[in-house]
Amino acid sequence: MARFSFNQATAKHWPLADVVAGCAEAGVPGIGLWREPVAEYGLARAAKLVRDAGLTVTSLCRGGFFTADGWRTENRAAIDEAAALGTATLVLVSGGLPAGSRDVDGARRMVADAIGELVPYAQSAGVRLAIEPLHPMFCADRCVVATLGQALDIAEQFPVDAVGVVVDAYHVWWDDRVYAQIARAGERIAAFQVCDWVTPLPEGVLLGRALPGAGCIELRRLREAVDAAGWTGPVEVEVFHADVWARPGREVLAESIAGYLDHVA
Amino acid sequence: MARFSFNQATAKHWPLADVVAGCAEAGVPGIGLWREPVAEYGLARAAKLVRDAGLTVTSLCRGGFFTADGWRTENRAAIDEAAALGTATLVLVSGGLPAGSRDVDGARRMVADAIGELVPYAQSAGVRLAIEPLHPMFCADRCVVATLGQALDIAEQFPVDAVGVVVDAYHVWWDDRVYAQIARAGERIAAFQVCDWVTPLPEGVLLGRALPGAGCIELRRLREAVDAAGWTGPVEVEVFHADVWARPGREVLAESIAGYLDHVA
Repeated sequence: MARFSFNQATAKHWPLADVVAGCAEAGVPGIGLWREPVAEYGLARAAKLVRDAGLTVTSLCRGGFFTADGWRTENRAAIDEAAALGTATLVLVSGGLPAGSRDVDGARRMVADAIGELVPYAQSAGVRLAIEPLHPMFCADRCVVATLGQALDIAEQFPVDAVGVVVDAYHVWWDDRVYAQIARAGERIAAFQVCDWVTPLPEGVLLGRALPGAGCIELRRLREAVDAAGWTGPVEVEVFHADVWARPGREVLAESIAGYLDHVA
Repeated sequence: MARFSFNQATAKHWPLADVVAGCAEAGVPGIGLWREPVAEYGLARAAKLVRDAGLTVTSLCRGGFFTADGWRTENRAAIDEAAALGTATLVLVSGGLPAGSRDVDGARRMVADAIGELVPYAQSAGVRLAIEPLHPMFCADRCVVATLGQALDIAEQFPVDAVGVVVDAYHVWWDDRVYAQIARAGERIAAFQVCDWVTPLPEGVLLGRALPGAGCIELRRLREAVDAAGWTGPVEVEVFHADVWARPGREVLAESIAGYLDHVA
């Protein structure tokens, strides 16, 4: 259990105080937080809650969306919040094409430029920017960074302690180059997240993820690959699914732990 | 119009005789056919219908599904049908993971082995096997060949006249390596298909395609890239969408032509 972390989005409707209590009771050492529920609870109050419970904040989701207006202000705020929560890892989802645009190369340049602009601010805050490639089905509307290779092409333009990448099994498992890219990533790996792939995908495709073990992803093989690349950090279970969200948080946490132990660890 | 081809799946419910008549009247030179409606109409009868109308059959969809039982019989039949229809291009969709399997590497090996086994039969029939990479969102359940690079890795194991690849804009546009892979493909390009990407994707994600120009794909840029790689063959419009299917075939054909001329040619 030493590396297990529970991403709070897995039990989206479980109130923050209850997630934290539930994790502490279950002997979970780490938690992944999201900006919105933290803001709702209060940033300083959330930081204290988690600290008092003895939990490590393994990542904050999320900055990014660099192709939308207001990205500078939003991302600086996200960096400040990560620092306040005591996590060094801010997950970045790049954003999709600007409205009405077909210029995917241009959007990708905007992402690299924006990250470059944020690096000094993040470094001064002691926060590492973690670029998350999303599955290519999100390329148009959520994330023009669609492969681990592409995330690394951007990350490698900056110091290794300033910019890393997220390896999320759901987003990368299909890629025939993923094991080569994980090996290439090495110290760039800033987070490792797991859930499972099941079909059919739901409308909008955002909420189609399953708990580890319920789908077709070789989760243990991917975990062994990130380990072989040098990753010794947490393994975050992060699932988005309406059916999972409808269940009691404590039950979802217990199944996340079981899925992690049986299929990932 | 010389390169325009209408894939019949774009107007799925338009009876074959009507599609053929509609294409001939509209001055469309080429048509892409599917096995099921051809079988329903009768193979020899369909071949005569299309020939009498002066249309070229630009491709037959589809063989493949090599991870399912009975693939040998099905694929030999598909090869025979392509030859009978007078097209040299049989589109192959590889199939997804076998039921209950997580072994994506193994499934990919099965695909390459199966294609190797079919090559002599296809060559003797004068039919070229055209491997179509599908978008990675179909990797689990329809097609473990998820990128053009991967399709080429398989195709290049066989003679160039025996095995080629399909470049379908919908499946490859998101890939930051697609232009490099199109250049690499050169004479391996066996078909070029277009439609457009729109969001949100529908449940099951199969029927989410739009007519050319309605979405965010740089269709003209992709067409110029295949041309620069040496492709002088047809440009097939192939759209799957329930709303498009619900409309009169003649209207859909007219809009496909307009979309092709405005956004692709």
